[in-house]
Amino acid sequence: MAQPAASWQAISHAKRLARDSKIPTAWRIPRDLYHEKRCVVGIPETCGVLTPDEVDITSNHDATELIEGMKSGLWTCEQVVTAFCKRAAIAQQLVNCLTEICFEEAIERARHLDQQRQSNPGGPLPPLFGMPISLKDSFFIPGLDATTGIVSLANQPSSEHSALVLLLLKLGAVLYCKTNVPQTMMTADSDNNLFGRTLNPHDVTKTAGGSTGGEGALIALRGSILGVGTDIAGSIRIPSVSCGIYGFRPGVGVVPYKGQREIAMPGIEGVKPVSGPMATSARDIHRFLEAVRNAEPWGFDSGVHKFSWMNLDPKPVEHLTIGIVEDDGTHTPHPPVRRGIKVAAEKLRAAGAKVVPIQLPEVDRHIGELYKFFKIGGPEPLFSMIKASGEPLVNSVQMTGLVKDEYVEPPTVQDYFAMFDRRDAAIQQYQDLFQEHELDALLMPGAPHTAPPFDIWSCISYTGLWNYLDSPACIIPVDRVRDVDVQDEIENAKYGLEDKRVYSAYTGPEHYQGLPVTVQLVGNRQEDEALVRVVEVVDAVLRR
Amino acid sequence: MAQPAASWQAISHAKRLARDSKIPTAWRIPRDLYHEKRCVVGIPETCGVLTPDEVDITSNHDATELIEGMKSGLWTCEQVVTAFCKRAAIAQQLVNCLTEICFEEAIERARHLDQQRQSNPGGPLPPLFGMPISLKDSFFIPGLDATTGIVSLANQPSSEHSALVLLLLKLGAVLYCKTNVPQTMMTADSDNNLFGRTLNPHDVTKTAGGSTGGEGALIALRGSILGVGTDIAGSIRIPSVSCGIYGFRPGVGVVPYKGQREIAMPGIEGVKPVSGPMATSARDIHRFLEAVRNAEPWGFDSGVHKFSWMNLDPKPVEHLTIGIVEDDGTHTPHPPVRRGIKVAAEKLRAAGAKVVPIQLPEVDRHIGELYKFFKIGGPEPLFSMIKASGEPLVNSVQMTGLVKDEYVEPPTVQDYFAMFDRRDAAIQQYQDLFQEHELDALLMPGAPHTAPPFDIWSCISYTGLWNYLDSPACIIPVDRVRDVDVQDEIENAKYGLEDKRVYSAYTGPEHYQGLPVTVQLVGNRQEDEALVRVVEVVDAVLRR
Repeated sequence: MAQPAASWQAISHAKRLARDSKIPTAWRIPRDLYHEKRCVVGIPETCGVLTPDEVDITSNHDATELIEGMKSGLWTCEQVVTAFCKRAAIAQQLVNCLTEICFEEAIERARHLDQQRQSNPGGPLPPLFGMPISLKDSFFIPGLDATTGIVSLANQPSSEHSALVLLLLKLGAVLYCKTNVPQTMMTADSDNNLFGRTLNPHDVTKTAGGSTGGEGALIALRGSILGVGTDIAGSIRIPSVSCGIYGFRPGVGVVPYKGQREIAMPGIEGVKPVSGPMATSARDIHRFLEAVRNAEPWGFDSGVHKFSWMNLDPKPVEHLTIGIVEDDGTHTPHPPVRRGIKVAAEKLRAAGAKVVPIQLPEVDRHIGELYKFFKIGGPEPLFSMIKASGEPLVNSVQMTGLVKDEYVEPPTVQDYFAMFDRRDAAIQQYQDLFQEHELDALLMPGAPHTAPPFDIWSCISYTGLWNYLDSPACIIPVDRVRDVDVQDEIENAKYGLEDKRVYSAYTGPEHYQGLPVTVQLVGNRQEDEALVRVVEVVDAVLRR
Repeated sequence: MAQPAASWQAISHAKRLARDSKIPTAWRIPRDLYHEKRCVVGIPETCGVLTPDEVDITSNHDATELIEGMKSGLWTCEQVVTAFCKRAAIAQQLVNCLTEICFEEAIERARHLDQQRQSNPGGPLPPLFGMPISLKDSFFIPGLDATTGIVSLANQPSSEHSALVLLLLKLGAVLYCKTNVPQTMMTADSDNNLFGRTLNPHDVTKTAGGSTGGEGALIALRGSILGVGTDIAGSIRIPSVSCGIYGFRPGVGVVPYKGQREIAMPGIEGVKPVSGPMATSARDIHRFLEAVRNAEPWGFDSGVHKFSWMNLDPKPVEHLTIGIVEDDGTHTPHPPVRRGIKVAAEKLRAAGAKVVPIQLPEVDRHIGELYKFFKIGGPEPLFSMIKASGEPLVNSVQMTGLVKDEYVEPPTVQDYFAMFDRRDAAIQQYQDLFQEHELDALLMPGAPHTAPPFDIWSCISYTGLWNYLDSPACIIPVDRVRDVDVQDEIENAKYGLEDKRVYSAYTGPEHYQGLPVTVQLVGNRQEDEALVRVVEVVDAVLRR
């Protein structure tokens, strides 16, 4: 192997410096504002960098309102984009959530959009007009790196747009930053040797989740209110759980995925990653998906399914049947998570929904199958890509055991087809479950815990099941950890040693204070639009 | 290997006897009616078995008319079903197109439907009410075999319904027979040792095509006017070309396929077989697909995509852009086929359509890739299944080289993913082609020739390309071989030796007299409904 031109440490140092130099001096905040603070969520509004208007723009509206405001002329695009650039810069200083910054280009584009609007007043405006949208680092924007935190990929700027990036630009969006991920994008800790670790803004001693963790932290600080992640085992939803935001995992072929940094081998079939929105309101999730689907996204990515957005009427809550999954039979939810589900189920019942307890069948077996799909490429190719720069594996990657210097015989195509056959049977099993109970959605945890301390997140069964079965799923934030969420007996964890180990991480509300409590709504396979509608209705009930 | 209980010849003999015993004596026709006749298409109407009413029912209407007639009470279901049972019995005697017969059960079900209708006049009736539908042998109907012509699978009656069979019954259809296929279902000659060969009713010295050849021959004789085949390389379209009927290959996931006799290994991914309709009118293709799609077919087969039938308005012909593919760059079409395309293109241009010449890119390479998918399982498993009874391979199967007693190392999963990656790129290439020329459809041959003599059909590039790319495609009959279709110089075949070999099979109109000339319309991927609409509009123009 050729010696890298510079040590990985030098590459990383230069890369971080180059990134930080994109933050204007006037947007810098003094370290003592946040030093030794556990929760930093309040700092953007009080640090003095944002004008009162910018505080209002970034704090008090969702994307739907902002877009309407820009369309009607209440705000210019430049105002809105500048406000979010500034707030993203603050967020970066607080929790290290950004990888690539293009604030100048974003503000330039915003001005351009304002001029277009002025030169043709009353002309039609695209559905995401002027809206700043943040992107996971894996997306390609020409001129910016897409390292996904791997040192050997630094300083290789993209020459093409990802399919979705091109589509978002067509829809009027403004791109202003990309966000941090774990080394390999295969863990729930957005930590890597190139950019370092993203912290959780609600408690900087906890993980921001992963792999779209930079996005989660940025949106929790409202340095963005609409971002895009990707999800192959929970990578949109785990940061949404950790940071208390809305995160939607669409089915395969709903939103363009093509043309981004892939760590899997090209052409891999089976359980596929998807792109999806992360936001601060349910209706922004809706707006994003509707805008993408109405733009004939298959013209941007031939892997996208051609079906129309139906403009389904939302079912009133009294007509909904929601299956309640208290746990998935593999990991016992921690007390705050259990309370979240219980309260949500009660609110739904009180609002007139039919609420049915559901036991998910064979989750353990299905997650075992999911891991078989993940392991197809073997642990060595990714190891080589990381080792090319001399950098070590980070802790959370080592813990997965998915990346090492070891050749593992890949499965035969026969084994592989047998995996598909079992997955087809599992999909049928879950379709039958939905059909039997006439479910509109399942309500369940997105993880057995809220954001835990660094590098201990191991359970992906609550999210990964839906990647295995290719069902749409959405995280909804509902509450915070409260004093009532007292630690209880470890004997409550009844699914074996690993369950007990994970359960024991909850050491009482004093150690998890203020961390978001979320729920997950899961729809029937290929019924993404119907789920979006259910999410909005259920969210409104849970907000009461 | 255990010795089979009886010789394959004895099993075959008994199986044919059992089948033929299901034809009542009154429906039998004397051999001298058809002995030494080359074309037998006229015989059902003149043989004396059918009453004048039955001749009218089976000869003068399409399924759409018959269903409306049964719904309105013009005919009883029993009348219609009996007429088609009788005509199918005649067809079987003429061209050996049936494998399984359940006439009695069908007439019984028809009576039952009539009673239901009488007991609830004015009640809603399902969209295929009373319609007799014939099925390829591979579909499962409880109590009937699904041997697909493999002797070792005889006398193992199905216990379940195929997903589509269950759906068709729900839609009001009446099942009355299953139809013949090639040994292995992988050739264009519906010939096997269990049932023998199906002949082409237009010329019994020519192939009926395959693998859904029994269906093609039965429909050409109007022993059925609505049937269901399957297609992985052309198995719906090749018999439609051979027998001069309408045959539609939908995209994967449009029509339920689950739960039928598979010769491929379960769970195989890549190029997948699909189910689709075969008929005598374009609007019956439309009616079938619409009925299936509107019945939430995903509830019957979780492999079916959930999208709604949109009730698209048909584009008037003047708004259509049709790409004309004169040949595919691998095989030169025979003179009658060339004339078919030329006349169709002229008629479309005259009717106001925009007609654009198109050169298909890299067909040779794509068909090479298609064969790689077919060969994944290796030649041995199918060989063992056939050899279990001691029967030999039939000629056409031997010719393919896909079945032999030879272990071939399967591709690695890495090789396999590379195949997928190349296929994804090809799909994008063809999507771009459609986009660039704003095509509504391609008009091209379904094969380089009309039905040829037995056991020489080797070219699947005209049909198989669309399986590789998963695009919808439909055969439309347009004419017959005529005296103007004179044999020309073999030098006109300019794509190499194999092209010359195939081209030399055309020995002038005197040897192909009366054989159907067809065209193929190909739609954009995942735009099946749009293609159906184009088929109806184009068909109306070509019929002028």
